[in-house]
Amino acid sequence: MTDFPTTDRNQVRRMPTRASYDATTIYPIIDEALICHVGFVEDGQPFVIPTIHARMDNTIVLHGAKASRLLKHAATGAPLCITCTLVDGLVLARSVFHHSMNYRSAVLFGRGRLASTTEEKWAALETITEHVMPGRWADARQPNEIEMNATSVILVDIEEATAKVRTGPPGDDEEDYALPIWAGVLPTPMIPQPPVDDPRLNEGIDVPGYVDAYWRK
Amino acid sequence: MTDFPTTDRNQVRRMPTRASYDATTIYPIIDEALICHVGFVEDGQPFVIPTIHARMDNTIVLHGAKASRLLKHAATGAPLCITCTLVDGLVLARSVFHHSMNYRSAVLFGRGRLASTTEEKWAALETITEHVMPGRWADARQPNEIEMNATSVILVDIEEATAKVRTGPPGDDEEDYALPIWAGVLPTPMIPQPPVDDPRLNEGIDVPGYVDAYWRK
Repeated sequence: MTDFPTTDRNQVRRMPTRASYDATTIYPIIDEALICHVGFVEDGQPFVIPTIHARMDNTIVLHGAKASRLLKHAATGAPLCITCTLVDGLVLARSVFHHSMNYRSAVLFGRGRLASTTEEKWAALETITEHVMPGRWADARQPNEIEMNATSVILVDIEEATAKVRTGPPGDDEEDYALPIWAGVLPTPMIPQPPVDDPRLNEGIDVPGYVDAYWRK
Repeated sequence: MTDFPTTDRNQVRRMPTRASYDATTIYPIIDEALICHVGFVEDGQPFVIPTIHARMDNTIVLHGAKASRLLKHAATGAPLCITCTLVDGLVLARSVFHHSMNYRSAVLFGRGRLASTTEEKWAALETITEHVMPGRWADARQPNEIEMNATSVILVDIEEATAKVRTGPPGDDEEDYALPIWAGVLPTPMIPQPPVDDPRLNEGIDVPGYVDAYWRK
């Protein structure tokens, strides 16, 4: 896959060794993240809204109610910044100064456009559903016409993107390694817990295998 | 505690029953979230950057290297949006349309200013360290003068804020409850895993109790 271009907008200045501009690093972060944070500007004021996303090739798809401020704004084609972040662990160094986190983030730049055809919306909604829970689209009751009409889908082609990744143990100043202070990493993964039946679930319906075996990535 | 004012900026229009403007709902979300996403605007372009934060009363503190784009921008007093999000579970309804997530988010609006005194910076760094890992500040080697000079601290008083919270089982259309489709919630908490020693850890230094017993909130 090709690298994204580096411009003043997406070039990482702090800790450039942690940065990457290639799709093979960036796409898996987007795909593993359950949600993203979308940034947009109205009258000079930034807004940052968490929402579910999915990726179709080099396009991010967002969805929601037609009345949503985020979607109405995104549909205008104004510039957006979409950020996906995974926190993998707390990095506890001997010095406060070298404390850090292990993380993977992807910062994406692009402009939204409204999905115009039913086919485009349908494909996006299937991709979003399968992003959150692979196997669910085929199992659930799929959208009817009223629901399709109530839903907006926004497509954002990724123009520029940056991943930033930190892994591994703390890095302390050489003279601090002698200190009698514990140092290491505390992993902080999301661990799915046993599914909770809907209180109104009918008798005799088992938890599907794709829910029981759920795991990100 | 008083409610935050509702204005055009922070008023929730979609699903207003999920919204709240009171500090007793908003502060615990800020405090439980390990990181936030900060939105700012440069030349009309939104940027959304993940970073560690902490709360001191009604003020959010951010920190980082002096060269950081985010901190340099925040120091100018330009408007910021700071969003903290916790994803508690996947809500699997019988219909695709009613799929959702259980989540708690806090969207905060304010303007940054650079911490000016050493005392202010010191207090902020202690609060940030203790936000991520309570007990760590007293145990680790605290910042020296060179480290303090290399670090910027930004203070953002919260002017307006909104929490949005969804909990509980799916809500399907009445006629869909008869469908033979499993429905329920898959909890998706962050579960700390056993700490990993730094490979360069000296012999005889045990994992501290506050690391072993780590839990958010």
